[in-house]
Amino acid sequence: MHNIKIEQTSQPKEKPAPDQLGFGHYFSDHMFVLDYTEGIGWHDPRIIPYQPISLDPSAMIFHYGQSVFEGLKAYITVDGEALLFRPDANFKRLNRSNERLCIPAIDEQLALEALKQLVAVDREWIPTAPGTSLYIRPFIIATEENLGVHPSKKYQFIIIMSPSGSYYKEGINPVKIMVEQQFVRAVKGGTGEAKTGGNYASALKGQEIADREGYSQTLWLDGKENRYVEEVGSMNIFFKIAGTVVTPELNGSILPGITRDSMIQVLKSKGIPVEERRISIDEVVEAYHNGTLEEVFGTGTAAVISPVGELKYLDEKMSINKGEIGEVSQMLYDTLTGIQYGKIEDSFDWTIRL
Amino acid sequence: MHNIKIEQTSQPKEKPAPDQLGFGHYFSDHMFVLDYTEGIGWHDPRIIPYQPISLDPSAMIFHYGQSVFEGLKAYITVDGEALLFRPDANFKRLNRSNERLCIPAIDEQLALEALKQLVAVDREWIPTAPGTSLYIRPFIIATEENLGVHPSKKYQFIIIMSPSGSYYKEGINPVKIMVEQQFVRAVKGGTGEAKTGGNYASALKGQEIADREGYSQTLWLDGKENRYVEEVGSMNIFFKIAGTVVTPELNGSILPGITRDSMIQVLKSKGIPVEERRISIDEVVEAYHNGTLEEVFGTGTAAVISPVGELKYLDEKMSINKGEIGEVSQMLYDTLTGIQYGKIEDSFDWTIRL
Ligand SMILES: Cc1ncc(COP(=O)(O)O)c(C=O)c1O
Ligand SMILES: Cc1ncc(COP(=O)(O)O)c(C=O)c1O
Repeated sequence: MHNIKIEQTSQPKEKPAPDQLGFGHYFSDHMFVLDYTEGIGWHDPRIIPYQPISLDPSAMIFHYGQSVFEGLKAYITVDGEALLFRPDANFKRLNRSNERLCIPAIDEQLALEALKQLVAVDREWIPTAPGTSLYIRPFIIATEENLGVHPSKKYQFIIIMSPSGSYYKEGINPVKIMVEQQFVRAVKGGTGEAKTGGNYASALKGQEIADREGYSQTLWLDGKENRYVEEVGSMNIFFKIAGTVVTPELNGSILPGITRDSMIQVLKSKGIPVEERRISIDEVVEAYHNGTLEEVFGTGTAAVISPVGELKYLDEKMSINKGEIGEVSQMLYDTLTGIQYGKIEDSFDWTIRL
Repeated sequence: MHNIKIEQTSQPKEKPAPDQLGFGHYFSDHMFVLDYTEGIGWHDPRIIPYQPISLDPSAMIFHYGQSVFEGLKAYITVDGEALLFRPDANFKRLNRSNERLCIPAIDEQLALEALKQLVAVDREWIPTAPGTSLYIRPFIIATEENLGVHPSKKYQFIIIMSPSGSYYKEGINPVKIMVEQQFVRAVKGGTGEAKTGGNYASALKGQEIADREGYSQTLWLDGKENRYVEEVGSMNIFFKIAGTVVTPELNGSILPGITRDSMIQVLKSKGIPVEERRISIDEVVEAYHNGTLEEVFGTGTAAVISPVGELKYLDEKMSINKGEIGEVSQMLYDTLTGIQYGKIEDSFDWTIRL
């Protein structure tokens, strides 16, 4: 159907040792490339040896930030099969990001087919040690050689893959996060709900401040009133307050996380009350003070579930659940990783076996 | 002092015809490159033949938008000399953008010296036809090969140059601009005051809407209240109301334009009242209705002064000064281009002759 050309590498790289992986340092032997040219559309799908990208210095990606990306993973199950987790949801989100950034839509079927073939070609690159996976990074960059500010007439859609280590080396460690006061990541009407480079560039400054104060991530508030909780650096955020799990609604300025959506479905299926709504930082502080803030956790492809052990807002340091992982967080983690590594049945039909 | 290596091209390109130039299509024979490596700092300043940039697909610029840029021009004066307009102000602003984007500061003296040498090497590329100039694009991109979200440990600072045509081919044509309602370019606490790719990517959508409705640019309102005037696509904005020139103050979300600053200085020197303050779109509409909205114009390196002949807000189309260039706009245009082309004395000490 889709005619994807495959050029095998003649120089396979040595694979890194499983305990050396970390995140995003090593890349597999092949990459997928698809070109866009105005008047022709997307063309020339191909799998080629992993290699540098050569662009004119006037290529628009270097100047005007027109880019989008995705992040998902391939896993080796306990039965030794290769498995993808909700890749269709990622390509759907990529197209929503494209729409916001004035990038022409990709064919989601072709993208999925390309990804399957790429993972098949580099199957040996999916690490098998517990907790490891192959992180997959689809991205699109504007490549027209032109300094005028307008949507590019040329793009490249590329998929690269990086074997990555276990996020939690010695069991799940709750993280410390800090509410950012001075800087803003996104605002309604901006690009916050798209997965585009500019959002991450603008967030670096808050991250720098968090680092300096010994916090691992920033919790962003909304850009208009500086009051409503949005999300963490690269995770959506959940609060368990008096037995109900609350997460900010998709308001146009936060990323619609696929892990977030999956967790909401799992919570519902277990009969745990869950609400998507506006939640102010004051409500969180109040719940902390009256003893009903039971759990806080982030959700994202990289960390799966990241329990928050300490939350700092202004001068107050709130210790959550004695700095330990809570019951619901643990259940969600076990359920999701169970499905991803094929240990429990995928009753949600989220996984694709290759 | 600064040891800038120069490698001359062995294959000089043919120069485009003066009437074919346009903006940002052609590039001179050489480029300046400076590398940054964590632990070493900025190193290896060099002028080399204009050539492609080759980067690993995991280079951070392709993913997380960590980039800044500048735009300025070199002119050939009526006496045949090459002249730069306030290049020091551009490199100062570049460093302010760097600070916001967590990019290490450059040595402004070195940058200026590099620019002078680069313009000298490619002096023949400065076009001489009336209204033409050599557009100069310094930019910095994050080049570390790593998918982790953090400030890059490697960068390239590059300067490319593009001969560009006269912005106004048949005299100054007032433009039609339109106030954007749905999308937001920037918000206080975000990256609006930095010259970084993400701001331009996020503005493309508004531009697309303006194009569709037959307007040449978008006028952005503030991201918090959607009420206060900010700036136009790539220009700052000025309103002459009842004899006083008003422009939005530098509030943290608009670009501190160098043309803007220059125009304020010229207005002051001529005794024309000028105010930098918050101005709501309602105030503009009211002035229009009571007949005191005398002139509207944008300022920027590319257009110098761009008179606005029609301003659309919601369903109202306001015709400004009968769609013609106003007296103050014309005076500012004549003064600035007079200084840039060496026709009138530079009493502000803005120009550097090479
Ligand atoms: C800003 C941001 N929010 C949330 C998430 C979580 O999204 P997902 O669960 O799809 O990985 C990510 C990571 O992808 C992110 O970058
Ligand atoms: C967003 C924006 N505002 C204003 C300006 C005008 O700035 P300057 O006068 O320094 O060219 C520019 C162009 O550089 C711009 O991109």
